[in-house]
Order: sequence, then C-alpha cells, then structure tokens
Amino acid sequence: MTLTSKPFFVITLSTALVATAVFADGHSDKAAADAVKARQAQMQMVGYHTGVLGGIAKGGIPYDSAIVDAAAKNLASLAKMEHATLWLEGSEQGAVDGSRGKAEIWSDAAGFKAKFGDMEAAALAMVGAADAAAVGAGMGALGGSCKACHETYRGPKN
Amino acid sequence: MTLTSKPFFVITLSTALVATAVFADGHSDKAAADAVKARQAQMQMVGYHTGVLGGIAKGGIPYDSAIVDAAAKNLASLAKMEHATLWLEGSEQGAVDGSRGKAEIWSDAAGFKAKFGDMEAAALAMVGAADAAAVGAGMGALGGSCKACHETYRGPKN
Repeated sequence: MTLTSKPFFVITLSTALVATAVFADGHSDKAAADAVKARQAQMQMVGYHTGVLGGIAKGGIPYDSAIVDAAAKNLASLAKMEHATLWLEGSEQGAVDGSRGKAEIWSDAAGFKAKFGDMEAAALAMVGAADAAAVGAGMGALGGSCKACHETYRGPKN
Repeated sequence: MTLTSKPFFVITLSTALVATAVFADGHSDKAAADAVKARQAQMQMVGYHTGVLGGIAKGGIPYDSAIVDAAAKNLASLAKMEHATLWLEGSEQGAVDGSRGKAEIWSDAAGFKAKFGDMEAAALAMVGAADAAAVGAGMGALGGSCKACHETYRGPKN
C-alpha cells in the first residue's frame, strides 16, 4: 500500500475558518463560535447592500440600475441562506462571545425563518426600481423586515 | 405643508456600513473600501462553509446530511452573488487597504465570473452527498475552484 493520498483541498483563503469539531448532537464551542462569525459576516453583507440602496434612495449615491438590481438580488440571496450551518443550536447570546441571538430563534424556528422570507420579498420587490424615488419606496418594507426580526430575535448589545 | 416624512428605514444592524458616496462613474474611496469589506465578508462565509464540508470529509465533524446540504447550497449562493456592488472598479489591490483583487478582475470580467460559476457547480454537486466519503469526493473540485480563481485573480498578501 502506497501513500498516495493528498489533502482534499488547499485552503487558500487567508481568513479561512475551519470548524473542527462536533455539529448536530453536540456542537463544540469552536463550531458555535465559527457559526456566529459566519452569520456576522452575513449581516455585514446585509448592512453593506442595505446601505447602498439607502444611499441611492437618499441621493448620496447616484442612481444606477445595475447597482440597484445587484444590491437587491444579493440581499435576497443573503436572506435565503440555509440556516442549518449558520444558526447552530448552542450559539445563542450568552453561550458564544459576540452572539446576540435569542433563544426564540431555536424555539420558534419557523417564525424566525419567516422573517427572512419577509426580507427576501422586500428585497426582490426592489429589483427593477426605476429611479431613486422607487428605491426609496421600497426601503420601508426592507428596513421594516430588519427591524421586525431584530425586535423579536435579537438580544441587547453585548 | 406638514412635515410628515420619516427616515426611509432605521438601520438596526450594529455593524451596518453605509456607502455614502459615488458609485459607477467615480466611486469614492469610502464606497470602494466598503465594497472590499463586503467581499471579505463573502469570503469569510465561503471559508466557513468550505471548512464545514472539509471537516466532515476528514471526519472531524460528524456527517449530517442537513449540514452538508446547507453548506453546499450556501456556497452556491455565495458564488452567485452579483458582482456590480462587490467588485467595484477602483477597489483593486493597491487602491484600497486590504484588497487583494488584481486588475484582471476588471479587464477579464467574464473570465472572473466564470470562476465563480465553477465554484457554484462544484458546490451544487455536493448537495445530497450521502456520506463523508462522498463529501470528500466533491472537495477536490470545490477546492480546485478556489485555487484556480485565486491564482489568476488574487494578488499577493498585503
């Protein structure tokens, strides 16, 4: 028997995180911490794209249909991210540094997921917005979806 | 005339970024810096989900079909993110702190986008992987897609 095996892949991402331990039945502390960082990255992308649309609505960023459509579509994609890897049980506020996830995320998983559905719908409604005013008209529903979810499922600042 | 207007939305994300200035014709430094941070968040999510799949393939994380499918689908969604907001012209390495994007991203936009298509295909091929060995079998193509893109379009460490 020769040793011809090689690593499955080479991680070339300088910021790559490797979840090293147990999921599902008993997540490790590291797995939970990694999941929290990944959903913070998700929220960072949400904040960026929401900020772009808000800037266009308010006039700080010139209207550009390609930018509007890309921002709205990316927000919809972010809203649709699968929860199993991101919202690990055991990654609630208090259990993991930096987490602000309330227990209701897991006790009411369907309600939590529905909030992302509202966000997705609000974002998709902005695809094709024909001018800054149309973008502004869509911001209420989009911002409302952020607020509604945070009020119910996000804990106080750490 | 009464003042009944209210803000379009309330940003409740503690880490929200607001792109305040000019896109398209002349992006501001702030807009370019914000885009770089958003794509670093995208890559953070890619690293997380790749790490989960790699951990399952190697046995450090127990196989769980829901986790595998979620990770693969999220990677595909991340690969499909629209480029207009994330890969702003003027956000290449040297122009923005932290950026490692090479000029080829913009001079060969179609080739660059095709690399993400390869990543998407490799990720989707792992949906339904029935055991850790099947996950491992998919890691070569997934890791290869990372490597191929980075070799051509990513500059040296800053």
